[in-house]
Amino acid sequence: MGHFGKRDDLVVHQEEPFNAETGPESLTDPVTGTDAFYVRNHGPVPELDPDGWRLRVGGMVERELTLSLKTLHEAFRHRTVTATLQCAGNRREGLIAIRDIPGEAPWGPGATGTASWTGVALGDVLALAVPSGDASHVGFEGADSCPEARPVQRFGGSIPLDKASRSEVLLAWAMNGEPLAPVHGAPLRAVVPGYIGARSVKWLERIELRSEPWPGYFQHVVYRLVPADGIPGPGVGMSLGLVALNSDVLSPRDGETVTAGRVEVRGYAFAGGDRHVARVDVSTDGGASWTQAELLEDLGRWAWRQWHITLDLAPGEHELVVRAWDSSAATQPEDEAALWNPKGYVNNARPRIRVRAIRA
Amino acid sequence: MGHFGKRDDLVVHQEEPFNAETGPESLTDPVTGTDAFYVRNHGPVPELDPDGWRLRVGGMVERELTLSLKTLHEAFRHRTVTATLQCAGNRREGLIAIRDIPGEAPWGPGATGTASWTGVALGDVLALAVPSGDASHVGFEGADSCPEARPVQRFGGSIPLDKASRSEVLLAWAMNGEPLAPVHGAPLRAVVPGYIGARSVKWLERIELRSEPWPGYFQHVVYRLVPADGIPGPGVGMSLGLVALNSDVLSPRDGETVTAGRVEVRGYAFAGGDRHVARVDVSTDGGASWTQAELLEDLGRWAWRQWHITLDLAPGEHELVVRAWDSSAATQPEDEAALWNPKGYVNNARPRIRVRAIRA
Repeated sequence: MGHFGKRDDLVVHQEEPFNAETGPESLTDPVTGTDAFYVRNHGPVPELDPDGWRLRVGGMVERELTLSLKTLHEAFRHRTVTATLQCAGNRREGLIAIRDIPGEAPWGPGATGTASWTGVALGDVLALAVPSGDASHVGFEGADSCPEARPVQRFGGSIPLDKASRSEVLLAWAMNGEPLAPVHGAPLRAVVPGYIGARSVKWLERIELRSEPWPGYFQHVVYRLVPADGIPGPGVGMSLGLVALNSDVLSPRDGETVTAGRVEVRGYAFAGGDRHVARVDVSTDGGASWTQAELLEDLGRWAWRQWHITLDLAPGEHELVVRAWDSSAATQPEDEAALWNPKGYVNNARPRIRVRAIRA
Repeated sequence: MGHFGKRDDLVVHQEEPFNAETGPESLTDPVTGTDAFYVRNHGPVPELDPDGWRLRVGGMVERELTLSLKTLHEAFRHRTVTATLQCAGNRREGLIAIRDIPGEAPWGPGATGTASWTGVALGDVLALAVPSGDASHVGFEGADSCPEARPVQRFGGSIPLDKASRSEVLLAWAMNGEPLAPVHGAPLRAVVPGYIGARSVKWLERIELRSEPWPGYFQHVVYRLVPADGIPGPGVGMSLGLVALNSDVLSPRDGETVTAGRVEVRGYAFAGGDRHVARVDVSTDGGASWTQAELLEDLGRWAWRQWHITLDLAPGEHELVVRAWDSSAATQPEDEAALWNPKGYVNNARPRIRVRAIRA
């Protein structure tokens, strides 16, 4: 066991704050085990006393609330949603390979994972607080102090009220049927399916109804897509929110040597937002022709879709290219280099791997 | 004036049934004039008597309804939404240039347009009918008999109940402030913002709450994305619904000769679904570097976004490439050839045009 009860096969990018991605083997599980689930932290894990902990709901509401865990449990309907969380920096290593991105972790394909989350609908809590007519964003603030922020501040972010009111957005106290672990946000975290992981704020202590998006560092300065020739700064670029359609190959690994003949290829695809994965194609001729992969278990509209395909590979070098399609019939862009951006977010280029097939 | 009160500069693809796209000049207007708006018909325009016309709402409902126009006007709140409609075959000409698609019209960039639509929310009408618990799709059937269908049938299609219940989905009797013209669906049509035009059923006579998507020809057989090597048929491929992120260059035109120096480039972009256009980039070096275009008037979340940029073009040949980004930070795919499909739908490749700049 590594830190925080995690398996040893996590790829640790940073010890303090703890940042680690799910290992390649665990990524092919439809639901990611809690001990294998990625962690993206911006500060030390806060140690909160669940009995003394309170959630405050304020800002543009008719009625301010202060809620204990006990009240959350007793006053609202319990809900469980299976949802994929994905860090906006997932697959950044592909962008770093093109041009370095100093100060940012080289996340591979494992800054994502799928779990079942249990708690109450944020919308049910908001209904009790009664947002005022001018409220259009719901801000979340955690208990974690983040030294990297300027000025130093707690982690926070907001989502549109329209999304916040939908039943899939949870205030969750359990993950995969177990009480939330401290490293995943105990005693309570937001879970915002379809949005970048940064909006699923952990160690949640305060909800603020607002007329504008969250003004803090983690939404107004970072987690923004800045043009390749831009300089990150307050309000520069596009605030990230919905996850963009993405996919990756999990097996075989890039550069792996396999036995020629029938080779099973596995991976994941995630449509993001409220879209679903409609199709996944694999090409062995650089994109000139495509074969459809089989989509595996459907875990519902908020989860990734695992896929596999069996290819017949002759001895020699092969390049595999994959493209996922979402429910609008949109597919991924080809050129990874043209997606490079100063903070290294949203690498959703079609994954490409090279494998060498040798005779048995 | 051409057919049906349309301007002469529409590009007519077929006289009967009438199919014509908006001309290049009119496409740069933020709101498309009704006399310039594209028409996609599958049968002759029905001539309906508005006094005798009734809308029937049935299927999986607690209460069947038969509604006159007068009742629709008087019993429900009137709403106006500015929305872009886009045919799934928009920009098909680019796919046909790669490989012929017999029997399908070579739509250019003008099988799309933006209008203000006035009527009542479909959701308000559904609330009166009370969908049963098993209902999850809302089917629309028009009065138009379509000879191309097998078997011959009225045009129809469905959308998910979840979408149908949202306030932007209208039963509309007016377009751009005038009573709906017969060619656009008088006396009443569906308007489903963010969905392919085929779901905005014209000459609407029947709404059916269902547990499954529409089984008719225009959803179960066509308007489906079939893999390049597939054969269209019942249930084959992916049913289209949400419009995929798209854009095109409107001025200059591909192949045009311009005066070297400052050249204004204009176009549109449309995010589809409930997403918005977040950015549009233009490249003059084949995609190695990009400059952001200026986004023009924001007509709201259901409308396209016009854009423009002024480039400094030296004398000689130039290729311009454009890519739009949606609010999930997803951008368009590069390779038009790899989007070819047997029915020629969803060409959302990054538009490329060639211009020749000559000295003044």
